[in-house]
Amino acid sequence: LVRSERFLASVRDLASIGATAGGGVHRLALSPDDIRARKQMVEWMEEAGLTVSVDDMGNLYGLRPGRNPGPPILFGSHVDTVPFGGRFDGAYGVLAGLEVMRVLHEHRVETEHPLGLAIFTNEEGARFQPAMMGSSVAVGKWPVEEAYAVRDQEGIAFGDALQASGFLGERRNRISRPLCYVELHIEQGPVLEAAGKTIGIVQGIVAQSWHEVVLEGEANHAGTTPPSRRRDPLVAAARWIAYVHEMAESSEGALLVTCGRIAAEPGAVNVIPRKVAFTVDLRSADEVRLRKAEEQMFAWGDDLCRRAGVEKAVRRLHWAPYTPFASGIRELIRESCLRRGYTFLEMPSGAGHDAQHLAGVCETGMIFVPSREGKSHCEEEFSADGDLVKGAQVLLDTVLGLDRT
Amino acid sequence: LVRSERFLASVRDLASIGATAGGGVHRLALSPDDIRARKQMVEWMEEAGLTVSVDDMGNLYGLRPGRNPGPPILFGSHVDTVPFGGRFDGAYGVLAGLEVMRVLHEHRVETEHPLGLAIFTNEEGARFQPAMMGSSVAVGKWPVEEAYAVRDQEGIAFGDALQASGFLGERRNRISRPLCYVELHIEQGPVLEAAGKTIGIVQGIVAQSWHEVVLEGEANHAGTTPPSRRRDPLVAAARWIAYVHEMAESSEGALLVTCGRIAAEPGAVNVIPRKVAFTVDLRSADEVRLRKAEEQMFAWGDDLCRRAGVEKAVRRLHWAPYTPFASGIRELIRESCLRRGYTFLEMPSGAGHDAQHLAGVCETGMIFVPSREGKSHCEEEFSADGDLVKGAQVLLDTVLGLDRT
Ligand SMILES: NC(=O)NCCC(=O)O
Ligand SMILES: NC(=O)NCCC(=O)O
Repeated sequence: LVRSERFLASVRDLASIGATAGGGVHRLALSPDDIRARKQMVEWMEEAGLTVSVDDMGNLYGLRPGRNPGPPILFGSHVDTVPFGGRFDGAYGVLAGLEVMRVLHEHRVETEHPLGLAIFTNEEGARFQPAMMGSSVAVGKWPVEEAYAVRDQEGIAFGDALQASGFLGERRNRISRPLCYVELHIEQGPVLEAAGKTIGIVQGIVAQSWHEVVLEGEANHAGTTPPSRRRDPLVAAARWIAYVHEMAESSEGALLVTCGRIAAEPGAVNVIPRKVAFTVDLRSADEVRLRKAEEQMFAWGDDLCRRAGVEKAVRRLHWAPYTPFASGIRELIRESCLRRGYTFLEMPSGAGHDAQHLAGVCETGMIFVPSREGKSHCEEEFSADGDLVKGAQVLLDTVLGLDRT
Repeated sequence: LVRSERFLASVRDLASIGATAGGGVHRLALSPDDIRARKQMVEWMEEAGLTVSVDDMGNLYGLRPGRNPGPPILFGSHVDTVPFGGRFDGAYGVLAGLEVMRVLHEHRVETEHPLGLAIFTNEEGARFQPAMMGSSVAVGKWPVEEAYAVRDQEGIAFGDALQASGFLGERRNRISRPLCYVELHIEQGPVLEAAGKTIGIVQGIVAQSWHEVVLEGEANHAGTTPPSRRRDPLVAAARWIAYVHEMAESSEGALLVTCGRIAAEPGAVNVIPRKVAFTVDLRSADEVRLRKAEEQMFAWGDDLCRRAGVEKAVRRLHWAPYTPFASGIRELIRESCLRRGYTFLEMPSGAGHDAQHLAGVCETGMIFVPSREGKSHCEEEFSADGDLVKGAQVLLDTVLGLDRT
């Protein structure tokens, strides 16, 4: 059994690194605070008897041998945060994994297979884009040279930041084909809380489609330009944004749409804008439906822009297919819940996670615990101690279950 | 008769001060180039025998005595420009006024009334808001202390910039009640060109209503927040912007609507925005209709925001009533056109001008000349030499006509 006091103390201790006045954590990837958090993790992992290795993306692995050689059963998450983020997103899964290792260490448990605790670099994608960089390179989905070349807003290359951090390790340390992977995470949504359940058994991660749409018309005087002469990209953008949200509304929850960013140039009260750029984030558990929604949105937009005399340029920022999780792992999670008497719910994950990349190379699963009011990526992010402990226990049970099978 | 060569040479010479590579002019109010342009104007005005005075807003007046004392017949415009603006907006009216003075000077014409050429400070409102600052203070509509306190984007107060420019004059030099005021200006719209007419006889300036709308919802995760939990201010803003443009479309040209500025916070692809701000510029020659449009827009927006769970804060940025111009002046402009054989069109001005403030204190009129493709507030702004000369001639005729009546 996990030891709640010890585990919750570590959650508190790690949250003190990069703590914000508002009760959150500000710990961007490879920032001084992220580096301090990584050093703390290395210390704790070594105290728990783990052998720590670092790969060429700065992913940290705390390894524990098993009776048999071969690839480890891997579990973990990340310790970087979004700006003014919460204390649990990422860190929770890592610290629960550490608790699993501590329990096995103090009880001198010998497992069949090696075990590995993974801390992936730059999961959030807040400082360096894209998100989930460390895991995507580790599994061989993305060339490391491209990751090194990515620059943050200050122009610092990821490769240089990694080198300077002291966490640039070796390519041969990558665990690119673990035996299997389990990730425990806060839900980041309101579903478990609303349903009154403790554990989410994640069925898979929804398909994601991100685009940037740039519309160009003609800047002109707001007072002297008759309607027939206007080529106003903001009117087109507004209609388009309204339309994609109507698509979402008529999908009965099958399609989630978010436009998070919009900007107009030149941006004066009395000047018809010349250029408007906005983003569209589409998600669905039904990948075919998502593709159809993309087509529908662009067909409608084409027609709109033609009529409005507006030029359109669309750039895909991100695509992730639907990622189903292994039924065997879901079954083990369910068994743990039943044995412990924890309530549970089978549910999709609306958010992307490192598990998405791991699922491409091994059997993968995820466990969720409730987030209060569904808040995440903000200082108010909160999960109750009792739920955090139960989630860690389910992780321990699942890892041991995987070792047996 | 005006002397075309001399007049067009002055237009070219003034346009060289703050000239841009793209053929336009960048001469923000009280910038070094605006100061150079003002010094050039003072030199030219003195050469034309005018007595130059400066008031406490830096408005310049070139005065010429008449047979009788009393307030002058005033005409003029401004020499500041928007960023990367054109060569004609403002400068044209000032230089045509100078040409009028030069013609009278070389022919030693004695008028009944004193004449005054006015150059108003900060008409554009590009550096210091609001626009038409100099004229509004001069006529006593706005307290000078408030104007002094206005700061530009770098935090420089208008009062300090004025002092530093060397153009801070005395309050008693204000011409706050001229006998009448005439302003010659480029149309800045495409109406005259499309109609194939040379001179616009301006009936009045449309009523203007500017608002900033700020909508606040709740920032949340784009992937984990179900539709029912979203309070998305950008969806509401998009619907609102689409709605006000439908109002404009169904008005058959009676209502002009422009949303020039929009911004969303925090502005990440996968974060539902917390806050969106946008501006609405409404204009109509029918003030009652404009008031009704405002009411309709806010009633609709109230309802929308209530349903979307979004908080709304509206701030009025500007209001100007419909400003009709004096029929006597319009008649003199028409007579000049008929006598000279210039084609003309009676039309409203969709743009605000200093004449708007002057109309509150004396009989006022405006003369337009065509703008190529209606372009203004940009480097491509252009009016043909022939039209510029004809406009100057109509100004001369109108001033002399006013002096006779
Ligand atoms: N877990 C998480 O917040 N991932 C960020 C990527 C996304 O799903 O938008
Ligand atoms: N003439 C002119 O461009 N005025 C600016 C104010 C406005 O009408 O928007």
